[in-house]
Amino acid sequence: MLSKNDIKSITRLKQKKYRQLDGVFVVEGIKTINEFLNSSYSLKHLYTTSSFHLSEKEETIISESELKKISFLSNPNTALALFHIEKKELSFTDNFTLALDDVNDPGNLGTIIRLCDWFGISRLVCSEHTVDCYNPKVIQATMGSLTRVHVSYCNLPEFLKSTNLPVYGAFMDGENVYKSTLTKSAVLVMGNEANGISREVENLISNRTSIPRFGDLKATESLNVATATSILLSEFFRTS
Amino acid sequence: MLSKNDIKSITRLKQKKYRQLDGVFVVEGIKTINEFLNSSYSLKHLYTTSSFHLSEKEETIISESELKKISFLSNPNTALALFHIEKKELSFTDNFTLALDDVNDPGNLGTIIRLCDWFGISRLVCSEHTVDCYNPKVIQATMGSLTRVHVSYCNLPEFLKSTNLPVYGAFMDGENVYKSTLTKSAVLVMGNEANGISREVENLISNRTSIPRFGDLKATESLNVATATSILLSEFFRTS
Repeated sequence: MLSKNDIKSITRLKQKKYRQLDGVFVVEGIKTINEFLNSSYSLKHLYTTSSFHLSEKEETIISESELKKISFLSNPNTALALFHIEKKELSFTDNFTLALDDVNDPGNLGTIIRLCDWFGISRLVCSEHTVDCYNPKVIQATMGSLTRVHVSYCNLPEFLKSTNLPVYGAFMDGENVYKSTLTKSAVLVMGNEANGISREVENLISNRTSIPRFGDLKATESLNVATATSILLSEFFRTS
Repeated sequence: MLSKNDIKSITRLKQKKYRQLDGVFVVEGIKTINEFLNSSYSLKHLYTTSSFHLSEKEETIISESELKKISFLSNPNTALALFHIEKKELSFTDNFTLALDDVNDPGNLGTIIRLCDWFGISRLVCSEHTVDCYNPKVIQATMGSLTRVHVSYCNLPEFLKSTNLPVYGAFMDGENVYKSTLTKSAVLVMGNEANGISREVENLISNRTSIPRFGDLKATESLNVATATSILLSEFFRTS
């Protein structure tokens, strides 16, 4: 049985301020919950209509209608788990690093985290105003990839000043990526959906890159940031 | 002033059966409406809080609160237009053709139409169960690209049997796309989000292709269909 207080303390985790206050985030669905259970993330509590055979302290069996009350999904799927947020420190590496300058949309961030997982990129550095990776819509879109990709938030200009790697940035008027020499010891910066890369970050970019448009002049002005990221990552990794 | 009947006849266009019955679909937002006004699509009527200077017969000035009543968006943007659906016949061409086998999600179809526009692909062939391109969420995601990309619905196996072009299909176990010779006179088939390409269509594929995964074995099992499409189209077009 769930109390009114239980319900309130779970549903308020839709908001970033309560996730930060409580240090907890929500994961839904059997498959994704199992990926988090098998990762470094530590479970706070599991609410489920069908037992995962965890200890009584960790698991509460609830009804379908109770699950509906706490779920963020229109079609809740068996279980909802609370996990403790991991504070990710910026690690130093000369591997490929993806950096996001104020990406706003949870679906885009989710797709980008999944792309990092696919390409084996373990480090994703986000500006402080990039959407929170523990946002329920991001968790839903990543499908467990967050357990394998190290996402950290920082002052992006400071981070870029501190790195010795070449810094690529995606612009409308950069060098044709298909004709560029790309190095895999690099940082690639992708900008905000509406405004692109901010002026302060732009000053720290060493290599401006672009995906050329093949359609005619009337064609769409830009690609979605997640789509553009997929094409650029494919170019960086295709020859490895 | 909008009558109750006006409101009902517009809001019901959220459903495919009424769009087909009325032969009409909804476009929202000044920028996208202007793209449709400057295209081959013919306007049925415009409802707007700020005049587009069309004839009285074509345009009705409404209040913000009336716009809220007819809009499909949580934040309506100035205007909502009704356009007549164009019946697109399958054209014959030996240019590159993208084909979708039961893509379900409106956001994915919208992103794919925008990608076609970017890469100058004017023909998109969809199986009969692919989501309707006049779905309001598709229109929202395409941002006017639908005015430049010819989308037609057909019996996909019949279409593939009738073409002389090589037929590529995206599979988990196909040939590494980065090491394949790709021809631009071709059809590329992308499958359903959950089930991939159907068995009937699979039998008509001449070239099975795959995007290799660079992450470790625990990494995400698959890429989103729109993301995979962007990478494959980039490979087909990068050398042109």
